[in-house]
Amino acid sequence: MRVSRLYGIRDLRLEESPPPTPGPGEVLLRVAAVGVCGSDVHYYLEGRIGDAVVSEPLILGHEFSAQVADLGPRAHSGRVDGLEIGQLVAVEPGISCGRCEPCRHGHPNLCPDVRYCGTPPIDGVFAEYAVMPAANCYPLPQGFGPAEGALLEPLGIAIHSVDLAHLKVGQTVAVLGAGPIGLLIAAVARAAGAGEIFVTEPLAHRRQFALGYTANGLAVADVALDPGDSDVAAEIVRLTGGRGVDVAFEAAGAADTPQQAVDVACIGGKVILVGIPSDDRMTIKASAARHKGLVLKPVFRMKHTYSRAIRLVQTGMVDVKPLATHLFPLERIGEAFELVAGHEDGVLRAVIQVF
Amino acid sequence: MRVSRLYGIRDLRLEESPPPTPGPGEVLLRVAAVGVCGSDVHYYLEGRIGDAVVSEPLILGHEFSAQVADLGPRAHSGRVDGLEIGQLVAVEPGISCGRCEPCRHGHPNLCPDVRYCGTPPIDGVFAEYAVMPAANCYPLPQGFGPAEGALLEPLGIAIHSVDLAHLKVGQTVAVLGAGPIGLLIAAVARAAGAGEIFVTEPLAHRRQFALGYTANGLAVADVALDPGDSDVAAEIVRLTGGRGVDVAFEAAGAADTPQQAVDVACIGGKVILVGIPSDDRMTIKASAARHKGLVLKPVFRMKHTYSRAIRLVQTGMVDVKPLATHLFPLERIGEAFELVAGHEDGVLRAVIQVF
Amino acid sequence: MRVSRLYGIRDLRLEESPPPTPGPGEVLLRVAAVGVCGSDVHYYLEGRIGDAVVSEPLILGHEFSAQVADLGPRAHSGRVDGLEIGQLVAVEPGISCGRCEPCRHGHPNLCPDVRYCGTPPIDGVFAEYAVMPAANCYPLPQGFGPAEGALLEPLGIAIHSVDLAHLKVGQTVAVLGAGPIGLLIAAVARAAGAGEIFVTEPLAHRRQFALGYTANGLAVADVALDPGDSDVAAEIVRLTGGRGVDVAFEAAGAADTPQQAVDVACIGGKVILVGIPSDDRMTIKASAARHKGLVLKPVFRMKHTYSRAIRLVQTGMVDVKPLATHLFPLERIGEAFELVAGHEDGVLRAVIQVF
Amino acid sequence: MRVSRLYGIRDLRLEESPPPTPGPGEVLLRVAAVGVCGSDVHYYLEGRIGDAVVSEPLILGHEFSAQVADLGPRAHSGRVDGLEIGQLVAVEPGISCGRCEPCRHGHPNLCPDVRYCGTPPIDGVFAEYAVMPAANCYPLPQGFGPAEGALLEPLGIAIHSVDLAHLKVGQTVAVLGAGPIGLLIAAVARAAGAGEIFVTEPLAHRRQFALGYTANGLAVADVALDPGDSDVAAEIVRLTGGRGVDVAFEAAGAADTPQQAVDVACIGGKVILVGIPSDDRMTIKASAARHKGLVLKPVFRMKHTYSRAIRLVQTGMVDVKPLATHLFPLERIGEAFELVAGHEDGVLRAVIQVF
Repeated sequence: MRVSRLYGIRDLRLEESPPPTPGPGEVLLRVAAVGVCGSDVHYYLEGRIGDAVVSEPLILGHEFSAQVADLGPRAHSGRVDGLEIGQLVAVEPGISCGRCEPCRHGHPNLCPDVRYCGTPPIDGVFAEYAVMPAANCYPLPQGFGPAEGALLEPLGIAIHSVDLAHLKVGQTVAVLGAGPIGLLIAAVARAAGAGEIFVTEPLAHRRQFALGYTANGLAVADVALDPGDSDVAAEIVRLTGGRGVDVAFEAAGAADTPQQAVDVACIGGKVILVGIPSDDRMTIKASAARHKGLVLKPVFRMKHTYSRAIRLVQTGMVDVKPLATHLFPLERIGEAFELVAGHEDGVLRAVIQVF
Repeated sequence: MRVSRLYGIRDLRLEESPPPTPGPGEVLLRVAAVGVCGSDVHYYLEGRIGDAVVSEPLILGHEFSAQVADLGPRAHSGRVDGLEIGQLVAVEPGISCGRCEPCRHGHPNLCPDVRYCGTPPIDGVFAEYAVMPAANCYPLPQGFGPAEGALLEPLGIAIHSVDLAHLKVGQTVAVLGAGPIGLLIAAVARAAGAGEIFVTEPLAHRRQFALGYTANGLAVADVALDPGDSDVAAEIVRLTGGRGVDVAFEAAGAADTPQQAVDVACIGGKVILVGIPSDDRMTIKASAARHKGLVLKPVFRMKHTYSRAIRLVQTGMVDVKPLATHLFPLERIGEAFELVAGHEDGVLRAVIQVF
Repeated sequence: MRVSRLYGIRDLRLEESPPPTPGPGEVLLRVAAVGVCGSDVHYYLEGRIGDAVVSEPLILGHEFSAQVADLGPRAHSGRVDGLEIGQLVAVEPGISCGRCEPCRHGHPNLCPDVRYCGTPPIDGVFAEYAVMPAANCYPLPQGFGPAEGALLEPLGIAIHSVDLAHLKVGQTVAVLGAGPIGLLIAAVARAAGAGEIFVTEPLAHRRQFALGYTANGLAVADVALDPGDSDVAAEIVRLTGGRGVDVAFEAAGAADTPQQAVDVACIGGKVILVGIPSDDRMTIKASAARHKGLVLKPVFRMKHTYSRAIRLVQTGMVDVKPLATHLFPLERIGEAFELVAGHEDGVLRAVIQVF
Repeated sequence: MRVSRLYGIRDLRLEESPPPTPGPGEVLLRVAAVGVCGSDVHYYLEGRIGDAVVSEPLILGHEFSAQVADLGPRAHSGRVDGLEIGQLVAVEPGISCGRCEPCRHGHPNLCPDVRYCGTPPIDGVFAEYAVMPAANCYPLPQGFGPAEGALLEPLGIAIHSVDLAHLKVGQTVAVLGAGPIGLLIAAVARAAGAGEIFVTEPLAHRRQFALGYTANGLAVADVALDPGDSDVAAEIVRLTGGRGVDVAFEAAGAADTPQQAVDVACIGGKVILVGIPSDDRMTIKASAARHKGLVLKPVFRMKHTYSRAIRLVQTGMVDVKPLATHLFPLERIGEAFELVAGHEDGVLRAVIQVF
């Protein structure tokens, strides 16, 4: 099969490789579509994310859908039998151990022994075939295309972020950063009945997108503000009559957005930290967080989201398709990475269509 | 001013009465619209609800909107100044004490010293004028009519019910009973992103209504089942692939609906008990609730819902108007009560338009 | 090996049986001590608990400690290596599947596919040897005897009950029923800093025990009331100045104790339902639960308690030894069952010392 | 009456001043004992805490007990009647408005309109008399002395900190910083059944104190580590077998302790931020908090703690007396401030005995 391996910074190579074989409880997947995530581009441009270093050639890619190509030998898990050859599935990219304390306590996303597709040293799925546990595969209903299936992964991160916020219907929200994750958080918050949503984003085309992108028939952003224009935190506080918002999602990973999130949150509010700062530092003014009695929650991957993500898309509450702004075949994956790296106007998610 | 007083069972009399005078922190309200709630009809038909007995002639009515007619003397609360004469407001009918432990802990709905409009011995608002604390009055934005304002009260009960469920976006829901409260719960659950909503209801016209009534552009009921036709709990379990639903709202107050709620809830699910059983008994099979590790929460009135209720209606996420199926002037209030008491086809909420 | 099998009502037979062999990830255990739980006695006296029927001869017993006798072949779980031959361990009796939704969400106690020792049709541990997954075995520190190890199971139920109550330090508690589980709940509540603990119990010797049994150096019951003497719920409300308690634990399984739990709980309080009513019905007055805005939680087995149970005993915060009032060798197991069935004075837990 | 006013940095002056008069719902208090809190010393040494500046001469002091000297005119609050002249009371120093959203939602500690004793521009209680709402006064049972009553305020902060942690019985805890607040947090955590408590503190005499100070009959610190000796976070992780602790309380306000709190917390753990950093910055490594899925909660003052604080002391679960290491009469208040400012060995809380 053909695979795309990262050999070094900006060095992706298309190669032939023997296809993998499914073991007990696993399935062979014919990869359909794979999103190019910001973290993939991080590895492409810098060869590492924090302590995770690409030291051997690595297949990247973890946001994906696939067709079931073959079933491994019957295992304890009845789920292999629930999958049929030919079925289109969305695939949860993390294989948690199931035995550690975080797994047993219901937090597979925090499993320290997780094997996560496309995170060194585990190969990902920019490839024609992959093997995954059947339990990670979620059959897609009629009407789902491969790109939509792939985008259930970032949608899951948005759902998990909103889960952590315990958002109540009618509450107000700010989303700082309108990249794909920020936009999906706004969409999920809208689907969850957020009363008013403020988005901040320096790129004009993304602000435009946020004002036109709908969930539940409403724009995901009621207001989209440019941090280059004004003190956006002060502006949101002003627009809410001095109160601030119930939940602030920091989805930019900039140096000043955590503090903005603290500033826009109301007394007793929640700050959900989704963005990944490039210098791995998060600094806030302590008194602001203390006087408001805020709760701050960093987000790591997601848990228990696939079934709900499928339902949100199936009912039309959230539409992930508009985020797939660019499609490429596997042989043009390098172009896709350069496009995303360039932050050009109009680019949200590039998706590799493997077949 | 004219008022309607209940003198005995089915004995409502229109009388003249001196208008009240607002004290410090209070406002004089010209009553606009008042919904006829099921509890009003209870008092009308039986003279009591449990331990609450109408022993003196009483003005009923608590779901209401009004125009600010006059302001009381300036008080500590700055809110009197926030209200202007002529403004249309929705009015929270419970005046909690603010000093007891439940109030101080954030549960004004559980205040044992609450004075609640239209609950003996406190007069309600089937009257031309009423006095309420300014803090209970919520200015209505442009576009709200009096009936919508009145219906924010039952909408608040629905919001509080969904709040107690900690419903997560995409989760599945059953609503047992499609009276006005059940329908509004389904609407709020839809607005909160419920993935699939099952409604059960013996009256055909209410099932029809549930399938046609929309929130967020989707029908509030995906499926509406008749308990006369089948074992609806078993049917909902079957329709969910044997899993059951994340949250079951019991909004019928029938003898068997609490058990049905237990039966349709999934393992680890929530049962929210909203209905008021006529014999004041709630019986369930203990092992079912235990084996599933359910959480059961009875609902009493609501708290912290008005601002959010206004936002849900203002954005169009929830439309309360269709529930106001019948309008009457104050002088025909008796007809309104008889209509609601008769459970006739097509009747959901009768609303008294006082001016 | 010798085992004790239940052939019918009150028909326990000591037999020879081939010892089991551990598979991958499992260990062979030489059973040390096994508590005779109320549920064991249920099966002994009635042959069933609700839908769980003893249709084939069954080895009962699930509260146990054991010595590691042999290790199964090396498995994925590193835990086999953490266990050494000769070690004394406490053993979690439920083998949850690890794959179903409740397991993945952190609720192994609610796993519908659990294999639970001594619950039909799964054999228990009134036997000289047993095989269990290594992950179910918790090494006991120096100073723990076999009986203490066995009693970590009911202690775990008490911990889980207190966990569900989200008890805050200094809050007040009522425990209805002072059998072994009620006593352990009172002890754990005391260890968790409960400010005042009221116990109700019809048997005089158990009330006496509750007043003398200490946790953290304080009696686990500040007050012990006899339901035969007075309306204990009204009495507890009176003793708390009319407020009631923050958490009411129903640990009697009597017909009237659920209602008593509702009556003693304060406004906004919690009712934790631990007892198993013999007719499997739970009936409460709906208005009482509604007006107080109570949260009701039935308890099923326990989760994530063993490490903490060990710590509570090791530090001396809770002492389980006094509950083991009677010890029997395996050959006298019938006497032990008859003793517990007889509800004689002074009997709390009978423990079978297998070696 | 005599009062002590702060006129400038290190400039406290004893003056005569007319005693205040209680209004409706208020009581006149004869101040008994007042603790010298770290925040008092902050104002004394620097004239400000962040944005709170002493611009007019100010009476400091807020941790206090008092004798009821006179009752104001009868008010709506029945509580005036509950207090008797001559009674010793502990006094909650914050007078929240009761009307704002945080107050109505149960968070009086976050009230933006609070009037807080001894916080500019509100005078505190280093004075012979003070007036407070009756609702702020908690009668002390027999056996409480004035100093104990005063120390219920810092004990309340410790209770609130442990409340925010949702500590479960048997869980493990780290407390970074063993000043009076850190010590009380350790004591409350111990009273709440913490399984193992690690304390870090640079001052040797405080480490010693932590190892000798008991709650529930156990030392509040199982281990006390010196951050000057070793990487205390790494050491605590090592001592917990690599797992870390369930809850980390940051009670030092140092530049590096927030990061240490993140480092010692287990996966899925809680970080409670109590300390006040002098530069008002809090910086942490984002990836560490994210990978562990931590919840971070800054603490601001306290709520709903007085009744429970009284119970903890009354039962002997927590003993606050040992913290009152030094007593001074009002005329020697300057010495008390200098003593606390000097961080001398053996000083924890200086308490001013006004009568």
